Amino acid sequence: MNDDRYMGIAIEEALRGKGKTLPNPSVGAVIAKNGKIISTGFHEKAGMPHAEALAIEKAGENARNATLYVTLEPCNHYGKTPPCTEKIIKAGIKRVVIGVKDPNPVASGGIERLKKSGIEVTVGVKEKECKELIDDFTVLLKKKRTFCSLKLAMTLDGKIAKKDGSSKWITGEQSRRLVHRLRAIHNGVMVGIGTVLKDDPLLNVRLVSAEEQPKAIVIDTSLKIPVHAKLVKERAKELIIITTERALLSYKSGILKDLGVTLIPVEEDETGINMEAALKSLKEIGIYSVMCEGGSKLAYSLMNKNLTDKFYLFYAPKFFGEGIPPLNGGELYKKVSIFDIEPVGDDFLIKAYPEDS
Amino acid sequence: MNDDRYMGIAIEEALRGKGKTLPNPSVGAVIAKNGKIISTGFHEKAGMPHAEALAIEKAGENARNATLYVTLEPCNHYGKTPPCTEKIIKAGIKRVVIGVKDPNPVASGGIERLKKSGIEVTVGVKEKECKELIDDFTVLLKKKRTFCSLKLAMTLDGKIAKKDGSSKWITGEQSRRLVHRLRAIHNGVMVGIGTVLKDDPLLNVRLVSAEEQPKAIVIDTSLKIPVHAKLVKERAKELIIITTERALLSYKSGILKDLGVTLIPVEEDETGINMEAALKSLKEIGIYSVMCEGGSKLAYSLMNKNLTDKFYLFYAPKFFGEGIPPLNGGELYKKVSIFDIEPVGDDFLIKAYPEDS
Repeated sequence: MNDDRYMGIAIEEALRGKGKTLPNPSVGAVIAKNGKIISTGFHEKAGMPHAEALAIEKAGENARNATLYVTLEPCNHYGKTPPCTEKIIKAGIKRVVIGVKDPNPVASGGIERLKKSGIEVTVGVKEKECKELIDDFTVLLKKKRTFCSLKLAMTLDGKIAKKDGSSKWITGEQSRRLVHRLRAIHNGVMVGIGTVLKDDPLLNVRLVSAEEQPKAIVIDTSLKIPVHAKLVKERAKELIIITTERALLSYKSGILKDLGVTLIPVEEDETGINMEAALKSLKEIGIYSVMCEGGSKLAYSLMNKNLTDKFYLFYAPKFFGEGIPPLNGGELYKKVSIFDIEPVGDDFLIKAYPEDS
Repeated sequence: MNDDRYMGIAIEEALRGKGKTLPNPSVGAVIAKNGKIISTGFHEKAGMPHAEALAIEKAGENARNATLYVTLEPCNHYGKTPPCTEKIIKAGIKRVVIGVKDPNPVASGGIERLKKSGIEVTVGVKEKECKELIDDFTVLLKKKRTFCSLKLAMTLDGKIAKKDGSSKWITGEQSRRLVHRLRAIHNGVMVGIGTVLKDDPLLNVRLVSAEEQPKAIVIDTSLKIPVHAKLVKERAKELIIITTERALLSYKSGILKDLGVTLIPVEEDETGINMEAALKSLKEIGIYSVMCEGGSKLAYSLMNKNLTDKFYLFYAPKFFGEGIPPLNGGELYKKVSIFDIEPVGDDFLIKAYPEDS
């Protein structure tokens, strides 16, 4: 069906801005008439024009009697830009096809406004994909904290590493490239200090191109990070360490600050750093989405506190028997809802949301 | 494409005999002419007519100039039945579409025979599915032992039970029904004694209909099975216990035999019962395919000795954190090749073969 096809292109457009638009949602738009695409647009960054406004501007007089495909319900309020609904009406668009309704009560009302002006409106085309486009935005809006996804790479029997801790190359090259693409659509990549000590990672985007690198975030209660860690040596200015007030008084803290590292003190709870407070602090400094890449203690702690908003689970076609489990800290019982399963080379990727979301 | 469609129907036919035809392969056939199905057939049991022979017989004079779809290369040798190739030629079939070549060197040569007689032959339609139909037969032929598949039901973090061992209802109802369908296509369902002591299972087909129940097979080195176990009380005559010569001398052994249980002694190796010998003994008594359903020690031992010929891995959309792993016995490193991923209700099923197969 044509609606699906054009919405698919609008989604591709939106993905170009995914992550970078936060705290705004990522949105894509296509204007089509007589089976031809007239223009496209996507929201690039907060403060920049909305996707549908861009597409309308590009289309000019050609927008008259055309169909607008937009992944998210057009806004109906005066924010940083005038309401898109008015632009759509003024441009003479005949029909608007919308992927998903706006979860933001302030911005919504767009569908009613368009209908009242006599425009034909269709809602829910490729809704699942359009909803996924704004999952980070939705969590930010509803939970007032940074969106946190959890990436795990496991064997089929649920091991993230061998018994001795070695975990290099569990998944194949295509999965590793995809992980870098996922890093690129988050504002930050987060790990526990254990992972830094074990793997000495860079946490940046290398296997695919990226206009902007995500920040590196390390949860490190007592500033154990070595000054010769790659993150400190090569990415000090993009490195954020979540730590405690106590640790800020240490000599090490001064050294790290001098090297350009950002240290953020967060309150502790019974299990260590209060991760909800950490995610609120990250929001305050403009990091609106992070992907946690382990280790298993941090992953357990996030899940146990219901702070994991999305799961990217990579499974490699291997069995390890004994080995390191993905979640370490005790028992828990968390249900998720799987919304996508896709092969990635010889591996496969499961995407899921927490059941309560 | 029509070839795919008709081969799909031939596969459905073949599945009606899956497991029951062993040591013969399960085969299905369809005869079609002018876009209409004239007849179908499937191999029901060793000694009964072959699928294509049945379909040809049902079609009668109508088979002339028709196309025959058959999941496996027609046989070209005089076994319990005359060669199917001769019947096909005699019936005046114009074209033969074959799913997969016969892995049996004795029976193969069918394709050449048909081509020589001027029949148009196409090979490899829905090959993956047709190959899966005969996976049990192929292992039996090549490895001279009973085919052994391994079924595991896990959480997304690879736990088959909670820490306390409780494992009821990890997967949902649809997965449990599918497991019963899988039991029905095996000659036996096999577990370790630990699973009997913990779960007291029946190991039969209840959630779907079955003409014949698979045998229950328990690996029990020292005959720990309680006489009040459901398997002994309700299924003694269908119960086979793989044990040791030593255990056969015990008092318990006499009691079990009196109740109608079959006891098979098998040699031991450094890790317990020699499972390869066990699978050879099962073949001797006409049990040509078994599905192992755990526990994690038996699963580990089978995998470690490369005795798992197929994997049915069910994943439920849950995390348990700490819990019981699917393989218990040490480290191993086994690669598999995933050939199918399908959602089953809220769960999903991964099907894989060992990489060396």
